[in-house]
Amino acid sequence: MSPSRPETFILGVDPGSHQTGWGLIGVSGNHLRSVEHGLIRLPVKESLSARLLQLHEELTVVIERLQPDEVAVEEVYVARNAKSALILGHARGVILLACARSGVTPAEYPANTIKQAVLGQGGAAATKERVAFMVRSILGLAEVPEPADITDALACAICHAHRREMPR
Amino acid sequence: MSPSRPETFILGVDPGSHQTGWGLIGVSGNHLRSVEHGLIRLPVKESLSARLLQLHEELTVVIERLQPDEVAVEEVYVARNAKSALILGHARGVILLACARSGVTPAEYPANTIKQAVLGQGGAAATKERVAFMVRSILGLAEVPEPADITDALACAICHAHRREMPR
Repeated sequence: MSPSRPETFILGVDPGSHQTGWGLIGVSGNHLRSVEHGLIRLPVKESLSARLLQLHEELTVVIERLQPDEVAVEEVYVARNAKSALILGHARGVILLACARSGVTPAEYPANTIKQAVLGQGGAAATKERVAFMVRSILGLAEVPEPADITDALACAICHAHRREMPR
Repeated sequence: MSPSRPETFILGVDPGSHQTGWGLIGVSGNHLRSVEHGLIRLPVKESLSARLLQLHEELTVVIERLQPDEVAVEEVYVARNAKSALILGHARGVILLACARSGVTPAEYPANTIKQAVLGQGGAAATKERVAFMVRSILGLAEVPEPADITDALACAICHAHRREMPR
């Protein structure tokens, strides 16, 4: 692949009901670089609808400002129980909506697929620490971004960069 | 209570991942009347984000047009499994967001509380048919609105009408 190939920008998002990580990477051929990343923290004391509004608005600002070509959102681990899944579903709903309202159809990847994309393996051995270490290595970052919500978001973007190049 | 008391408009919403029912009632003292109701059907073949966008936009149009004073949203039955709960959570997330973006903080009631409000009892005996029958009776409707998503939404609005009058 030619290094003069135009750069594609991919935004990865790791949804959470308390905080949502995001990371933008640039992809040019097989070269990946980190552009910017951040964390959307939600106020605990607000009502659920107010928290969802804040998440939706902050992510919309990020999308409008960074203008990603593509967005990839981590599919939620089917959580410990139905109640956790329901709350996480609320957060994911307004994240997918923010993409759709900005004219981007988000790709979705299960957590295990993302781990396999950056580590070559999934399952229990694929810890958050190992994902963070490999994200740093793949993107050539001086330090591991924290918290893990951000490295998970960058891993999701890396996963999409790999999968979108694969022949169907 | 005086019949000249100004009317308060309550929108009830019954969220679903395939279709979402809504119903607006007018409350004046202890008199309740049905104003309008409807159903938002979602295209099955679209992507999840496109379906959520449609649900959000259609409900926003309903809220902006009807200008309810208050909105009440049914809390989802903790579904059969975590996967169902997750998808329902997505729909509920964009519904709560539509309320928040229109400046209304939605009240939320568990399904069993809603059944108790219209039937005086919850549990397995409180079938959808009995809820629909009582909604028709309470609101003095000529016919039972269908499908049950609409009567469930009206029941949610009735529940809110009763609960908001209760001393804290």
